Amino acid sequence: MARRPRTGKATSIDVAREAGVSQSAVSRTFTPGASVAKATKARVMEAANRLGYRPNAIARSLITRRSQIVAMAVSYLDNQFYPELIQGLSNQAQERGYHLLLFTAGEGETADVELMRVLDYQIDGLILASVSLSSAIAERCHQAGIPVVMVNRVSDTPTVSKITGTNAEGGRTVAHFLARGGHTRIAYLAGIEATSTNRDREAGFRLGLAEVGLPLHARAVGNYDAADAAQAVRTLMASAEPPDALFCANDHMALAALDTLRAELGLRVPEDISVVGFDSVGAANWPAYAITSFAQPVGAMISATSETLFAAIDAAIAGEPFEPRHVEIPGALVVRTSARLAPGVTDGGTWTLAN
Amino acid sequence: MARRPRTGKATSIDVAREAGVSQSAVSRTFTPGASVAKATKARVMEAANRLGYRPNAIARSLITRRSQIVAMAVSYLDNQFYPELIQGLSNQAQERGYHLLLFTAGEGETADVELMRVLDYQIDGLILASVSLSSAIAERCHQAGIPVVMVNRVSDTPTVSKITGTNAEGGRTVAHFLARGGHTRIAYLAGIEATSTNRDREAGFRLGLAEVGLPLHARAVGNYDAADAAQAVRTLMASAEPPDALFCANDHMALAALDTLRAELGLRVPEDISVVGFDSVGAANWPAYAITSFAQPVGAMISATSETLFAAIDAAIAGEPFEPRHVEIPGALVVRTSARLAPGVTDGGTWTLAN
Repeated sequence: MARRPRTGKATSIDVAREAGVSQSAVSRTFTPGASVAKATKARVMEAANRLGYRPNAIARSLITRRSQIVAMAVSYLDNQFYPELIQGLSNQAQERGYHLLLFTAGEGETADVELMRVLDYQIDGLILASVSLSSAIAERCHQAGIPVVMVNRVSDTPTVSKITGTNAEGGRTVAHFLARGGHTRIAYLAGIEATSTNRDREAGFRLGLAEVGLPLHARAVGNYDAADAAQAVRTLMASAEPPDALFCANDHMALAALDTLRAELGLRVPEDISVVGFDSVGAANWPAYAITSFAQPVGAMISATSETLFAAIDAAIAGEPFEPRHVEIPGALVVRTSARLAPGVTDGGTWTLAN
Repeated sequence: MARRPRTGKATSIDVAREAGVSQSAVSRTFTPGASVAKATKARVMEAANRLGYRPNAIARSLITRRSQIVAMAVSYLDNQFYPELIQGLSNQAQERGYHLLLFTAGEGETADVELMRVLDYQIDGLILASVSLSSAIAERCHQAGIPVVMVNRVSDTPTVSKITGTNAEGGRTVAHFLARGGHTRIAYLAGIEATSTNRDREAGFRLGLAEVGLPLHARAVGNYDAADAAQAVRTLMASAEPPDALFCANDHMALAALDTLRAELGLRVPEDISVVGFDSVGAANWPAYAITSFAQPVGAMISATSETLFAAIDAAIAGEPFEPRHVEIPGALVVRTSARLAPGVTDGGTWTLAN
């Protein structure tokens, strides 16, 4: 403790006296998750600050074996979906007295070399957002008693919990919606081929097209990347029979597709071609884009992730078994103006297969 | 180490033999910042993984007193500037064997209650991105030997390093640019009043207007918030003499201003009113917005922050003094199409006061 010469001098009794509260209130203030009135907490923090008091967090961590650290591995942050997810998960972790240790890895990679470093830290849990996991790392975490939750990805690893949207149902819904809108040359812009999100969205989309008796008119790969998506759109539109509708496997690509179609190719959306995305990120709702998109309810995904992770952490501490969960969060197609509508359908609401 | 039953069995000699490399190569692979060929590193990691070998990170941390953790406090992530910053800083930290422990706090707040928790962790440094710092917390960090770097904010605290853009010069440049474009009713949309960024951008903007002999025609407050900015724009445009140009203190507000002016009020930009922003975030460059904006070079800010922080950490470990730095990263006005241009000026480049 040589780096913190002033800590440990004041006791919780001193702080209680200074703040004019009970010693129990001081203890609760510094126990993550414990109940304490906001005003009381503020007074205790002020008094603790004046006196230089810190509870001995390291000693507490040795007893409880909790580091209060959850590692979080995320892929590229320029897709607006991830900053929203990080902010929400961080806020929920902080409410429980935990903080997120960030690992940035490439989208779709197993990122083993970087994830190995997770085990260099004393962590209480691991969240993977759109990052795959090798079975080797999953096994190491399992042996070390570290719960793992994957968000927006699935894997076959049985020891890992998974929180996803309804990817297949979303793709199927988009196919029916575009068919009802009178489109006949419907194309798919794929994300990274190896990801479960792309696989499930495309499978659902193809199923939906088959159900309405339409072929998949064309297919190109955008790799969940803006530049790759733009290039794929150029290729699709240069064909002898260009599509009249394009389903993009996420909004990050749909935004790039709209820019390319309108600003570069001079086309009108949706008069010349309809565009539908997936995720309903913030920018999809900006009036300059107004992208019809299958919404993944990020708030519900954040809550399910937190609940699953902290239930698993609590079980690990209690020495009890925890059955990994797969939670599917239902989504809905948010109708905006980037795709032509069937008669009677208006923008501004949601559309389901029951419509 | 009870939670990691399989660690510590294999030695670095075993790993070297398995990978067919020298023991020194194994050691360098697990020493953050040490030089080792990429292919060698990959072979060592694979062999280490097969054998269940981990270097004893906790023991190493006790000797070096380095936790390899840098705390990072950030404000709201829906402003694209911050995800870019986090991604870059995380990548640079990881190259040095460090990871970021995230603290999410409200924009412009001193966030003392949450930041106090920073001291619950054994951290090697603290980065504050657009979050203010009370002198009490700064003093506690200083006493504990924890270097602090503020990004995109300044404070009077002498023990803290600061990395900023050229906020005042940026505001001044925008004023001259708008005057040259023939605007006469120039308004300012302020960010959070208490922040140094708002204070400096506005001071420079007012100086620039004074230099060209123009008054500040109107002023409203958007609090660096999209909804507040939209409301401020409605108020400004409802006046008897609405502005013909609007300088928004950041792009996050400029995007909301453009949406409000065009989609809600039915105005043309820049024919009816010019809009200029600050930061040049990703969306400012999307063709649907194409916002003329004073660019804060985020790459250079990331590098300066990393260099300053790790120089301070190295000094702390060596027991040497470190003089806090204030680094100003020069920016430039990126000319796009959201503001009317002076004769002879074209979009697609940058504009400086020397023009």
